[in-house]
Amino acid sequence: MKVLRTVTAVREWRASAGAVGLVPTRGALHAGHAALVDRAIRQNEAAIVSIVADEDPDLRSSSEQADLALLEAHGAAAAFIPAREDLHPAHGTHVTPGTLAEPLEGAARPGHLVAVATRIVQLLGIVAPDLAYCGQKDFQELRVIQALARDLRLATRIIGCPTVRDPSGLALSSRNVALTEAQRTNASALSRGLMEAEHAFEAGETDADDLRSLVRSELEIWGLAAEYVSCADPVTLQELSGPVERAVVSLAAQIGTVRLIDNALLGIRLQDLDELQ
Amino acid sequence: MKVLRTVTAVREWRASAGAVGLVPTRGALHAGHAALVDRAIRQNEAAIVSIVADEDPDLRSSSEQADLALLEAHGAAAAFIPAREDLHPAHGTHVTPGTLAEPLEGAARPGHLVAVATRIVQLLGIVAPDLAYCGQKDFQELRVIQALARDLRLATRIIGCPTVRDPSGLALSSRNVALTEAQRTNASALSRGLMEAEHAFEAGETDADDLRSLVRSELEIWGLAAEYVSCADPVTLQELSGPVERAVVSLAAQIGTVRLIDNALLGIRLQDLDELQ
Repeated sequence: MKVLRTVTAVREWRASAGAVGLVPTRGALHAGHAALVDRAIRQNEAAIVSIVADEDPDLRSSSEQADLALLEAHGAAAAFIPAREDLHPAHGTHVTPGTLAEPLEGAARPGHLVAVATRIVQLLGIVAPDLAYCGQKDFQELRVIQALARDLRLATRIIGCPTVRDPSGLALSSRNVALTEAQRTNASALSRGLMEAEHAFEAGETDADDLRSLVRSELEIWGLAAEYVSCADPVTLQELSGPVERAVVSLAAQIGTVRLIDNALLGIRLQDLDELQ
Repeated sequence: MKVLRTVTAVREWRASAGAVGLVPTRGALHAGHAALVDRAIRQNEAAIVSIVADEDPDLRSSSEQADLALLEAHGAAAAFIPAREDLHPAHGTHVTPGTLAEPLEGAARPGHLVAVATRIVQLLGIVAPDLAYCGQKDFQELRVIQALARDLRLATRIIGCPTVRDPSGLALSSRNVALTEAQRTNASALSRGLMEAEHAFEAGETDADDLRSLVRSELEIWGLAAEYVSCADPVTLQELSGPVERAVVSLAAQIGTVRLIDNALLGIRLQDLDELQ
């Protein structure tokens, strides 16, 4: 596996790499990332994984050696690990997502999705992949990236991939390592709440308020207060009311020092989302 | 010459075109555009010219037939003429330039440079040219595009090309056709004012206020009131005061129904600008 540390090195590698799949990451890699890499390898001639840490204080400083070992074991062709300052936009240009970025994480973390959008446009410009792979766990981020790739007419298609979970249902996240064992048990209530909503929807419960309440109830049993529980249109991310045909139910909750997010899709398949405007 | 009307058609053409130079235009082509095309042909295997009208009310609806004839005569390999709605960013993603876009035209025409930035990122994404050519006349636009190409780590280099002028010195512009003969005579005062500043600078006059005053005086002789006369740093576009080592002197003025802009570089060569941050 090639470890590429400069934009020039990536462009040279790219020139002879054939069909390329990109997995953009922030490091601290886990089995969720590995699933993205596996898929990128299956669908392309070569998979490249970018590792660019962000300034998220909840995120442990990634262990580059462990990350590289994981990528090597899964057969990635290359890792792109630029210095953070190598991607600094000196003139202050940024990519501003539209209304998709306003609610939920956009409201909770001002500027975060602008930084994500700018970074991904840089990475797509540098790597020029045919396909790029993002996990469903960061659902709004996935949708913002799919939207910007279409809006800016980039040549790359953005593939959403299902969330990988531990046996308790907890969505894998680099942040989980900061949970105590007791907090981890509590945290599994997040995915159980979402599953309750899924099962209820399949059984005919389509009222957006009721679906949100179901999730909240499960969280309350475990003494968890959600920062938000949303039942929104999965294409526009606008909050829904009344009966819904399709929805993304999503939540954020603080557990100890860790802020976790998760979501479930109702009435629509992840792979059909990008086609809808 | 190929006339390509869809993104897909451009991508297919691009795949076998070798080294490509892009000349992005808004149509209503004149000898200034032709000079960009000539240069794109000299420096690449093929030149492609995009024609995407903007909503500028001052700009006459472009004559597609005349535009295509000019491009054919100059040897462009392809013209890309999408329908305006084919480039509409349905999700509202846009590219926001940094502080370079705040003064001058950015202040006079709110939103204009955001639209320019978003459009050029789309075009660079669709065409993936090695080089793209922009005229010096729209100097702030040129600088914004150079800055975003660097900030977003796009693979294309942006080449600034000298303004083409008519024998009176008037910068060629699609808008000039709306000038009466008398207005055209007056309009030549714009370039004469800038030339006065150039000559004074070469003769040792380096005070920013004095350089601005020189331009204003020339305009006043002809009864023209400038919307602005700026003496700014050519890299940052921040307004200067006191003695200057390098500058861009630029102006905007309304003549009849037509708003014209022009500029001159002092103490720096156009081709050296992009390297400076």
